[in-house]
Order: sequence, then structure tokens, then C-alpha cells
Amino acid sequence: MIANTPKPPYYAVIFTNLQTTDLKGYGEMAEKMQQLAACRDGFLGIESAREGLGITVSYWRDEASILAWKADVEHQIAQKLGKEKRYASYKTRVCKVERDYGFPVA
Amino acid sequence: MIANTPKPPYYAVIFTNLQTTDLKGYGEMAEKMQQLAACRDGFLGIESAREGLGITVSYWRDEASILAWKADVEHQIAQKLGKEKRYASYKTRVCKVERDYGFPVA
Repeated sequence: MIANTPKPPYYAVIFTNLQTTDLKGYGEMAEKMQQLAACRDGFLGIESAREGLGITVSYWRDEASILAWKADVEHQIAQKLGKEKRYASYKTRVCKVERDYGFPVA
Repeated sequence: MIANTPKPPYYAVIFTNLQTTDLKGYGEMAEKMQQLAACRDGFLGIESAREGLGITVSYWRDEASILAWKADVEHQIAQKLGKEKRYASYKTRVCKVERDYGFPVA
């Protein structure tokens, strides 16, 4: 679903990735990470799609909430496993959303 | 593919959408728009995936190049058709990429 984010400014983390073929348990871990992220203070929403290339965009109130989630212990374990086994390559971009618009207009 | 963007700061346009079922000619037009965007001054790259939800992130040197592309005549026609027929809903977010990191490190 399209995330129901508040009026800008807020933050977006664009995580773009290509997987390896070693994906045992990947789906369960990805789902758990989404659930944990959603419980964090400052979390605003998440959007995700994979079509070969995977794109996950999570939205946050501010940089502090992004850094706190990055430092979460369970998330750190997932990040380590991601680098070691699950991702052939990835790029993470931390952005400030300056303006947005949509259709139909909310 | 993961876009090979320069060192921040630069801009990202996150376009998240849900399609209608009236998609005759959609693929061709989407492909043409990507080709035209890639020719614009200030274009840095594009990443796209659809899994029910469609996410396209295009990267740009600055706000001026984003606004110039939005005002392009052929792009305007595609935007109008998008609202009238192709998209049940969408959200466009214009963001300043403040920092990024990747794996493997380039």
C-alpha cells in the first residue's frame, strides 16, 4: 500500500538491493524487521516491491529515529546476515522529503 | 539495476502507485518516459520495481532538473493519461538525498 505519511518535511530511507540465491529464512526475517520497524518511535510507514531489483522505502519523523532503528540489536543481526548471505549488492539512501503530492488528493 | 549515483547531495523523486486495470499501451509509454527522462540534463539514474505496488525512484542533480522534466510536453501528456486512466492512486515525494552508503563499497 501507499504509505499514509504526514505533511513534509519528514525523512525517507530508500533501500535498493539485489539478492543472492541463499535466501533460506529471508522472507520471515524481512517480515519480522518490518514489524519491528513499525513499532519504533518516529516510524511513519513503509513501501516495498521486488521485481528482480528490490526497493523498500521506509519513512521516518527525523534522522534520530532512523539512527536508533539502525542501531537496534535485532536489526543489527539482520544487517550482518544481509551482508554475509542475502544481498549481492545494495544501496541505502537517507533523504529529506521536502514536498509531496498525490492522486486522488487526500 | 541499482543506480550509480554520485556523492550526495542530489535529489530523488519517489513515485509510488497502484494501477487501474486499463493498461493498454502502459508498458510502451512507461518505457518511453524512462528513455526521455534519461536524456534530460541533470538525470542521474532510475530504479523501478512493481509487485502490486509500483515504486519508481528517479535521481536528479537538483530541483530545477526535476521541474524541467515535469514540464516536458510529452511527459505532461503521460501524466494526464496517468491520472485519467492508468493510476488508481499515486504519491510523488521529492527528496534531497543527504547521505548514502552501499555494499559492496564502490
